[in-house]
Amino acid sequence: MADWLKLIPADQARSMLLDVPQVGVETVTLREAVGRVLVAPLFAPHDLPPARLSAMDGYAVRSDDIARASGPDGEVLAVIGAVPAGSVFTGQVGGGQAVSIATGAVVPDGADAVVMVEFTTPVDGAGAYVGPGARVRVKKVFPAGANIVQPGEDLRAGDAILPAGRRLRPGDLAALASFGIVDVTVFRRPRIAVLATGSEICPPHQTPLPGQVRDSNQYVLAAQVEAAGAIAILGGIVADDSDLLRATVLRLVDENDGLVLSGGSSVGPKDLTAGVLGALPSPGVMFHGIDIRPGKPTVFARAGNRPVVGMPGYPTSSMVVFEAFVRPMLERLGGENVTDTWPTMLRARLSRAYGKPTSREDFLRVRLSVRADRDGEVWADVLPGGSAAISNVILADGLARVPAGIDHLDEGAPVGVRLFL
Amino acid sequence: MADWLKLIPADQARSMLLDVPQVGVETVTLREAVGRVLVAPLFAPHDLPPARLSAMDGYAVRSDDIARASGPDGEVLAVIGAVPAGSVFTGQVGGGQAVSIATGAVVPDGADAVVMVEFTTPVDGAGAYVGPGARVRVKKVFPAGANIVQPGEDLRAGDAILPAGRRLRPGDLAALASFGIVDVTVFRRPRIAVLATGSEICPPHQTPLPGQVRDSNQYVLAAQVEAAGAIAILGGIVADDSDLLRATVLRLVDENDGLVLSGGSSVGPKDLTAGVLGALPSPGVMFHGIDIRPGKPTVFARAGNRPVVGMPGYPTSSMVVFEAFVRPMLERLGGENVTDTWPTMLRARLSRAYGKPTSREDFLRVRLSVRADRDGEVWADVLPGGSAAISNVILADGLARVPAGIDHLDEGAPVGVRLFL
Repeated sequence: MADWLKLIPADQARSMLLDVPQVGVETVTLREAVGRVLVAPLFAPHDLPPARLSAMDGYAVRSDDIARASGPDGEVLAVIGAVPAGSVFTGQVGGGQAVSIATGAVVPDGADAVVMVEFTTPVDGAGAYVGPGARVRVKKVFPAGANIVQPGEDLRAGDAILPAGRRLRPGDLAALASFGIVDVTVFRRPRIAVLATGSEICPPHQTPLPGQVRDSNQYVLAAQVEAAGAIAILGGIVADDSDLLRATVLRLVDENDGLVLSGGSSVGPKDLTAGVLGALPSPGVMFHGIDIRPGKPTVFARAGNRPVVGMPGYPTSSMVVFEAFVRPMLERLGGENVTDTWPTMLRARLSRAYGKPTSREDFLRVRLSVRADRDGEVWADVLPGGSAAISNVILADGLARVPAGIDHLDEGAPVGVRLFL
Repeated sequence: MADWLKLIPADQARSMLLDVPQVGVETVTLREAVGRVLVAPLFAPHDLPPARLSAMDGYAVRSDDIARASGPDGEVLAVIGAVPAGSVFTGQVGGGQAVSIATGAVVPDGADAVVMVEFTTPVDGAGAYVGPGARVRVKKVFPAGANIVQPGEDLRAGDAILPAGRRLRPGDLAALASFGIVDVTVFRRPRIAVLATGSEICPPHQTPLPGQVRDSNQYVLAAQVEAAGAIAILGGIVADDSDLLRATVLRLVDENDGLVLSGGSSVGPKDLTAGVLGALPSPGVMFHGIDIRPGKPTVFARAGNRPVVGMPGYPTSSMVVFEAFVRPMLERLGGENVTDTWPTMLRARLSRAYGKPTSREDFLRVRLSVRADRDGEVWADVLPGGSAAISNVILADGLARVPAGIDHLDEGAPVGVRLFL
């Protein structure tokens, strides 16, 4: 058997991949912060909202004054002021008084409830709104606290809002903006070179000669690298020439934060990658071969802090190894707090039984469908097509992982699926 | 009751939103194509693979010659050539002959099977590989077709590979690259202006005066617009000034493909948006108010082909309306073939019963967890916090939609969840 058949278990491969250091940090504007990874946790510097706010358009009142407002005549109050959006009413709401108030405005002192405008009528004239100096009739009882958002009701001063290592989602920007954090300290995006190897590979704009095949993995990998939050640098195509490959790998590792090589990770006579990676600075090759399918012939090395991955050349194998192993490694390199390398809450039932060796972890290309005849459950059809095929990657909705330790799944067994996005 | 309480059903709102025309097209490079939307379907211009390829490193042989290779001496063949990656063997494999072949190389004429190198030994000397002029011993039977990928086995000439309106995923680039499509015709990214309105709104870098609140929605919306494949243009903050708001809206609509306004979509005295949108060119306001929670006070208008959405100002409401209504509209504007406005295969069980009015569609902020005590099922906890809160958006994993027509869900009822990404 060849050397790389000393396969390491998938979990061990993941541990080694996630044990990469993080890149450095930089400061970006709020506008640029989405998708970036927070360096430090965000604690609320003050309560949010900072004061009592009205949740409705209406009138700030004393709840005691309107305790009998459900009677036939309601309760008539004197409007002594108005709090439009963006301003405050500096006076005090006394007995029998009201202040008209906009949604989001600060509730004046003395008032302890807001009556929605829908439950009022002007006493002297028409129109929904009553200005200062006029009177308003309240027609419904509202208890103390009604339609008032209390200080700190949303977030309290000192609350941990966003953890370190969080990749910022659009909604997270609301917290940063609300607390005035317009310069955000985030991890740099790792710069990852992508390199295609193999004398049979020609650029996609060329018509392949007999025996040649167009490079597709470099483009797919670059898109995947960027989807993982890194910057992809196209390294080009290198033929099966050991010296040229070694020089190119050393240069790309030197110029970037990491390198992903496509092809050449197997052990044929022209598969030079493992040999070349053996020439990398310490610690060098960490493993060669993972007990998974597809994607077994994967090489992982480190040149100092910089990860170098030799990916299998087959499109499906490359896709699987990237999604399941390289993506979490790059996220980690980019500072993300990766605790789960296969984060999925999506469960589907396998549409037919599946068997495999116990030790191996398998990744099935699946197409999902909602089965009306099964109470709307989601079922997964495993797509045919070997690891050399691109059709199954295009047709699949995602990948189902069948962990090591399992040798058989019945029809209907639940599997966790990660969607291709 | 106020004017906007003529609520339209959510499904009707979606139909109107999806009835937007598409923006124009442009050509981008393969490197830029991921995330962009294909204008025309891609049909395979030729078979893939175009010829018979070896699936393994080994020897191309005639299967008849090795039909008894499982015997103690195996079967000895004369190696008459080699097909390294990227080249072809132009001769013919005759009786008793073999050609050494690399994975992915074209299988020579005359051969009908490939023997994996693991099941061979050199007859004359050591080492795994045997060069031309030497002999190889085959130790296992392989039938006709073994380890050969047939022409068209992956994709056949004329096959529909990718449909029009497909938003290209990383894996899709493999098809484009393999067929030499390096210039890709895609829809332009729509340019969408985002505008914050309200006299109470101050920029996030300022310390709010009493009664003021920092603008957060403009940043969240810009990030969401870009996650929907469009280009976001920050339009700034406009105070509650009808003339200024009208002029700004008309300018932004003129300069861009669409506009999303935050705040001012309710019916308070300072809520000017609906009035200003009434001044837009035909067809103007399409609806004002959707029967959903949160997000009811949403206005949708069209200025000719250009969509204008007045979003509710509360952060949670804005998030929900964007995800459920504006996102699919923008995807459609950008050419995507949107057939499902709430595409989710993720099902979770509600951790407590939920009731609501029958007609209304609700969106719950949920946090998901895998329950080991329930066979690994995924359960959804509904987060507290009103539509003014940002805490629930940050803590939630996503949104569960409870459709109209349902007034009660039991504890444990399945809901479809879309994750915040």
